[in-house]
Amino acid sequence: MGLVPDLLAAGARVVDLSADFRLHDAAVFQEWYQPHSAPSLLSEAVYGLPELYAAEIRTARLVANPGCYPTSIILGLAPFLNAGLLSEARPLAIADSASGVSGAGRGAALGSSFCEVHDSFKAYKVIGHRHTPEIEQELSRLHGQAFPLAFTPHLAPMNRGILSTIYVESRREISWEELHSLYSDFYKDKPFMRVRPLGFEPQTSDVRGSNFCDLSLFWDRRASLVKIVSVIDNLCRGASGQAVANFNLMCGCGETDGLPSAAVRP
Amino acid sequence: MGLVPDLLAAGARVVDLSADFRLHDAAVFQEWYQPHSAPSLLSEAVYGLPELYAAEIRTARLVANPGCYPTSIILGLAPFLNAGLLSEARPLAIADSASGVSGAGRGAALGSSFCEVHDSFKAYKVIGHRHTPEIEQELSRLHGQAFPLAFTPHLAPMNRGILSTIYVESRREISWEELHSLYSDFYKDKPFMRVRPLGFEPQTSDVRGSNFCDLSLFWDRRASLVKIVSVIDNLCRGASGQAVANFNLMCGCGETDGLPSAAVRP
Amino acid sequence: MGLVPDLLAAGARVVDLSADFRLHDAAVFQEWYQPHSAPSLLSEAVYGLPELYAAEIRTARLVANPGCYPTSIILGLAPFLNAGLLSEARPLAIADSASGVSGAGRGAALGSSFCEVHDSFKAYKVIGHRHTPEIEQELSRLHGQAFPLAFTPHLAPMNRGILSTIYVESRREISWEELHSLYSDFYKDKPFMRVRPLGFEPQTSDVRGSNFCDLSLFWDRRASLVKIVSVIDNLCRGASGQAVANFNLMCGCGETDGLPSAAVRP
Amino acid sequence: MGLVPDLLAAGARVVDLSADFRLHDAAVFQEWYQPHSAPSLLSEAVYGLPELYAAEIRTARLVANPGCYPTSIILGLAPFLNAGLLSEARPLAIADSASGVSGAGRGAALGSSFCEVHDSFKAYKVIGHRHTPEIEQELSRLHGQAFPLAFTPHLAPMNRGILSTIYVESRREISWEELHSLYSDFYKDKPFMRVRPLGFEPQTSDVRGSNFCDLSLFWDRRASLVKIVSVIDNLCRGASGQAVANFNLMCGCGETDGLPSAAVRP
Repeated sequence: MGLVPDLLAAGARVVDLSADFRLHDAAVFQEWYQPHSAPSLLSEAVYGLPELYAAEIRTARLVANPGCYPTSIILGLAPFLNAGLLSEARPLAIADSASGVSGAGRGAALGSSFCEVHDSFKAYKVIGHRHTPEIEQELSRLHGQAFPLAFTPHLAPMNRGILSTIYVESRREISWEELHSLYSDFYKDKPFMRVRPLGFEPQTSDVRGSNFCDLSLFWDRRASLVKIVSVIDNLCRGASGQAVANFNLMCGCGETDGLPSAAVRP
Repeated sequence: MGLVPDLLAAGARVVDLSADFRLHDAAVFQEWYQPHSAPSLLSEAVYGLPELYAAEIRTARLVANPGCYPTSIILGLAPFLNAGLLSEARPLAIADSASGVSGAGRGAALGSSFCEVHDSFKAYKVIGHRHTPEIEQELSRLHGQAFPLAFTPHLAPMNRGILSTIYVESRREISWEELHSLYSDFYKDKPFMRVRPLGFEPQTSDVRGSNFCDLSLFWDRRASLVKIVSVIDNLCRGASGQAVANFNLMCGCGETDGLPSAAVRP
Repeated sequence: MGLVPDLLAAGARVVDLSADFRLHDAAVFQEWYQPHSAPSLLSEAVYGLPELYAAEIRTARLVANPGCYPTSIILGLAPFLNAGLLSEARPLAIADSASGVSGAGRGAALGSSFCEVHDSFKAYKVIGHRHTPEIEQELSRLHGQAFPLAFTPHLAPMNRGILSTIYVESRREISWEELHSLYSDFYKDKPFMRVRPLGFEPQTSDVRGSNFCDLSLFWDRRASLVKIVSVIDNLCRGASGQAVANFNLMCGCGETDGLPSAAVRP
Repeated sequence: MGLVPDLLAAGARVVDLSADFRLHDAAVFQEWYQPHSAPSLLSEAVYGLPELYAAEIRTARLVANPGCYPTSIILGLAPFLNAGLLSEARPLAIADSASGVSGAGRGAALGSSFCEVHDSFKAYKVIGHRHTPEIEQELSRLHGQAFPLAFTPHLAPMNRGILSTIYVESRREISWEELHSLYSDFYKDKPFMRVRPLGFEPQTSDVRGSNFCDLSLFWDRRASLVKIVSVIDNLCRGASGQAVANFNLMCGCGETDGLPSAAVRP
């Protein structure tokens, strides 16, 4: 937010990889991060999820590239919420996510050193991870009114990938077939979305090095819950790959230009 | 169940590591597994969780050693349910678990071969894992009436360890301090239970090679949910270590006899 | 060797990924593998290392795609041997190699199951790995007369990659600068060879998903030895990628056609 | 070396885990490390390998605990050198070692961060690792005169363990049986040494969490070389476990006191 006003003034268009322009409300930003130094741009910034905001991104001056956890969770819930299916009695989403270590960024930190992480699985920031308000903002917009998210991030001993298992209560019973149709229609013609067949067991290596988001749908009859498993590569779809997709929309390039080439390190 | 009747008839006392005597209801067993060949023993068998059934185990002829996922989830919820805290409006528990690969047993299977698992995180049997009825049976007993569990197992790229993140709605708001007292009292004098302090970030390496079950408690104010993170070593507390603990009770040995020595392979 | 004669008779040209046509001598093949059913083709088959045999590959009917260990070791020693530098007093090469688990092929085997391999490093087939005669054949040809190789393969807990550390005694003292020039000249204009700068610490992730072979050179003054570290991705340069490079030569395509795209799974 | 003189003056006996007192020659120490501030103690310090120096350790005031790589290599070559078997024509040892990441110590360093190390195998300090003079000193003493070592350390993507593959030329042909007898006799009654049977494929998980050093012997007929594979846990036998063994000797305790309990983290 220190640089963006000058870049825009100089006529540039910006895809911002930081969290600075993802929240529309300066007060919420300040609660989770710090005071905002360019609050007047918050209403202009477009949340850079191409599947939800392609039209706005095409003409945007400022695109806020989403976080990695939010990308997996919002894409996983968008068709369900957009169809008005969320329970009225208990409007709540639970997202239980596991991320590879590259999600923490590259750097020398004890918490991401090999022997601390290897052969172990950890829950961290169990309450209050900073991605929470960003996810709630977008889920609430899709639902039409505010509702809470319970989000638990975990660290898995792998280089990259995010798998989010999402639990929501449906307003009415819904068959797997209906869920599958709903999702397939919503993401029709979206080249980076794959709605998986019945019984598919999703894993992060399915999307390694790619911009894909894989979604698997489940109806848990015993618990009367919809479960959605969403898988992305946090380094591609969850960061730079999504920035390239946004750039492509902003510049009128092909939607997948530059994105089939895999990034294989780490 | 093919061997146990003869062993008992011969005067032996049995700790059974299989799932054959964990369910009290032969019909439920048949629904999830196969027809039961010794149903008359089901009412006699004691579910081998020492923290819940020590008195019964001491005198039991037949102890059904619990599964690894059930151990982590039941121990995680027992104090909460025992205190009558589960929501009446929405009696439901969600358990999202990650297990190391040894949970699948030792053997040559493509699904547990190195290159299939390494550097990836996977959801499997998202609906209908066989441990579900065993967990529901014990949770419902603790709560005083039947209620459902939504359980999702995941495979993590590590040798061993299980971490379960559990979500329940409380009948009333409850502070972290009250939760911590409740759990500390319930597991007072239990040598293998550790209730962790506020803000502790639990991980499976904390319990590697040991019989400990570590519990971390969280109150998610935004979502009005209690979160409990439970961590065990599936090879020790989740299998043979627990069998030794049951043997100790049955034979009048010290509770921790033989258990401090770590099993370090794999 | 069961299929190739018919394929050739039908007019096809073949890149064979098996070991059947790598050895020129049917007796040596039989010693290490089994009787050869098409020995008349052994003298015709070209050993498919593009950096050494490009002219022959272009016109070959039958190309024997090299093994993964041989690729790393032969490319590592070719410039040194070709320059006639191997010691007369002690003509010997020692190659100590570590491979990822995919080198064993995909399949359900206890020896490549996750818990057997993970977090461990193993020496296997310490004497008599089947790649030995293939490497000796090519090294001896480069040197101009037969000499032995001591080869030790190791299994490293990673998906893929081979790193070979090679020890040879030089006929005369040789500076790092001279070694570096020799190698750079030998591999000039070879798009998949990278001779690394002084002090570079080579690792398999440098070549992951690519057809590169990276070479790092060292003069060990204390021991009067030349050390060469050679790194490839066994799944690309050590197998299918090299087959594509051979195909490109045979069909007059560009040398790197189809090869920049990374293969990222596993 | 800053503390030890005062500790000795105060009457304490010291097992020093640093490298300060491992080299007998202050000039060599300075060449590889820095000027020595207590050179008068160098001749008194005993090199703390219990299998070689038990008598001296028992009465020593100052024991220099060996490095992890040196422990694996010196124990691997001691019986061979002690028997006078090293070639006169080419007195040389080559040691190619792979270590887990804990060998670098605990700390926040980019080079030991998870994503730099995971799923990769690396050669480092290919020439001039600081453990070289310490190993040469002990090997030369065993051989009876100075000879060089070519040593190449590698970093393997695992928490702990060292496997060293050692190559030496024998003065005469030697059968595996003779080698095995020689080693078994030399290490008879040494509780932490295991000479493995013919064909055994050694790996670091065999010794995880223990003070064992496993040795496997090979005669490479084709190359006329003896190969020795030596395996230790760098955190136990290669560091603190060996310090405890030295302490036991110094204090007249049982040789294995305190050492069967495994250290399982990381």
